[in-house]
Amino acid sequence: MNKPYAIGIDVGGTTTKFGIVNRNGEIIEQDRIPSNAHEVVEDFIDDLCEKLLPMVKRAGGIDQFVGIGMGAPNGNIYTGTIEYAPNLKWKGIIPIAELMQKKFGLITKLTNDANAAAVGEMMYGVTKNIKHFITITLGTGVGSGIVIDGKIVVGYDGFAGELGHTVIRHGGRLHKSTGLHGSLESYASATGVRETAIEMLTEHPETESLLRNYSINELTSESVYDCAIQGDTIANRIFEFTGQILGESLANFIMFSSPEAIVLFGGLTKAGPLLLNPTRKYMEANLLPIFQNKVKLLFSELKEADAAILGASALVWDTLRDGKGDF
Amino acid sequence: MNKPYAIGIDVGGTTTKFGIVNRNGEIIEQDRIPSNAHEVVEDFIDDLCEKLLPMVKRAGGIDQFVGIGMGAPNGNIYTGTIEYAPNLKWKGIIPIAELMQKKFGLITKLTNDANAAAVGEMMYGVTKNIKHFITITLGTGVGSGIVIDGKIVVGYDGFAGELGHTVIRHGGRLHKSTGLHGSLESYASATGVRETAIEMLTEHPETESLLRNYSINELTSESVYDCAIQGDTIANRIFEFTGQILGESLANFIMFSSPEAIVLFGGLTKAGPLLLNPTRKYMEANLLPIFQNKVKLLFSELKEADAAILGASALVWDTLRDGKGDF
Repeated sequence: MNKPYAIGIDVGGTTTKFGIVNRNGEIIEQDRIPSNAHEVVEDFIDDLCEKLLPMVKRAGGIDQFVGIGMGAPNGNIYTGTIEYAPNLKWKGIIPIAELMQKKFGLITKLTNDANAAAVGEMMYGVTKNIKHFITITLGTGVGSGIVIDGKIVVGYDGFAGELGHTVIRHGGRLHKSTGLHGSLESYASATGVRETAIEMLTEHPETESLLRNYSINELTSESVYDCAIQGDTIANRIFEFTGQILGESLANFIMFSSPEAIVLFGGLTKAGPLLLNPTRKYMEANLLPIFQNKVKLLFSELKEADAAILGASALVWDTLRDGKGDF
Repeated sequence: MNKPYAIGIDVGGTTTKFGIVNRNGEIIEQDRIPSNAHEVVEDFIDDLCEKLLPMVKRAGGIDQFVGIGMGAPNGNIYTGTIEYAPNLKWKGIIPIAELMQKKFGLITKLTNDANAAAVGEMMYGVTKNIKHFITITLGTGVGSGIVIDGKIVVGYDGFAGELGHTVIRHGGRLHKSTGLHGSLESYASATGVRETAIEMLTEHPETESLLRNYSINELTSESVYDCAIQGDTIANRIFEFTGQILGESLANFIMFSSPEAIVLFGGLTKAGPLLLNPTRKYMEANLLPIFQNKVKLLFSELKEADAAILGASALVWDTLRDGKGDF
């Protein structure tokens, strides 16, 4: 008998979102808990269990579930461990899949959170019929998932797809938590947009800008967006620059894996054409002719939380495990 | 009956090398013709045929052959066509696989020349037991082949793996034939080393250097090497800089596909540790900790011509087509 449900869990830096997913990719119930309220991972799992068990019961009990799929920062699909995730409280190597499996008695698979989102996109989103694509999540940081021939690329040790940490500006802006200079994440994230705003306002004290009405603490990618749509010059220049950095990076990625599409997710995509237009312009300008005007640049239509929950749940569907491949 | 031989052909910008290969990966006979002596591709094929047929005859006749595998610049595995190869005389889209197949009556498969070399390395070289690796050919230009999970990455349209054209220095050196600024190939190729030499000699007129004994026309990556091993400061700085650019690029590639190894081929690798040491240093310095001190940096042990002939021939072995996957 095909069991009808899977549990999908997305462990984020701040919040853990989880839900019960059916075979059609519908999240029939979902909830969330904070990720960083527990000093040890066992307490986190207890908390998760307390929230999940009533949901499982309402869905007909544990026998109706094929397993648990999880996405987490630095989640390793080979080992089921979270390894040295800089944004989580639990340090070192955390065997979370094994702990969950013991707690729930369900097969538990783990992968990187960005990879889980890419799987969600592939199964239920804009890339449903696309076998070669890259997803880029433009949130607090920059995450990525790479799909080649319908399979997520995990690489030799399970950590492939850290495109946010590739360097696009030699000797550029310091990324504090990695120590790298000029990485994509240091520019094309919500944090990066804020830093660009501060830089541009400081470097051009003579240029009037609505952004000067905000205190340094109030300056966010949202306030930059609000000013940009009112025609503010500096705010528009900030998105132009962010799109330039992103577009140049995408060109490099395209010459690596030659995808059919690139899917953008995350908070920054709310800027719409303000971000998309310069991104496409600089992407095309940095491609060899054989790649030009071919690659689709798409916004995800899934809610970000949904994509990750759906993608995580997809790790345990037996049809996937037996058939289409090993995510 | 398993036919014992395949023909492998490597169409290079200057020379086309070809050979008869047995199932053990031994090239039992080989020869070469110029690539650019023929205005139309049909004449090139006639010339190739004239050289190949006596070799085929000595090997027992056409019935002993499983097929023809070819590597060529901008060779497309999906369509069997060479598309807009900047270094070849035949312009536009050349259906070379179909033309060869008609001429010889043998199944003919085509792929990108750098991909063919990567397949050769995987079957017969230092990556025989490695399923995730990247090959980088440091010759007149910079070619690359990417292997993930034992398969060459060709991407959506067959052109994946153009890593030589990824940009590593924003606004950097102009690459004349592509118009890109600061691409890997503009620095980490024989041509790039020569340009770096000219730049450094011009920018530091006060620094003595053995390289000043060469005329501009005599300055080559070989002369830089000859001076470097004699302890020349500028010559050593040229390799340090070339290794820096290459190492930084490799770090970006590693964060994309998380390979177990990177294999370097081609003329520049003759510089040995002079190139390898700075490459490794800057590669490690630009990696996230989860990738550090893990990736093997290897020199190919195959002769470059052999790797491409072997890899091309591997495209048609029936064991590969039926079994291990679709190259």
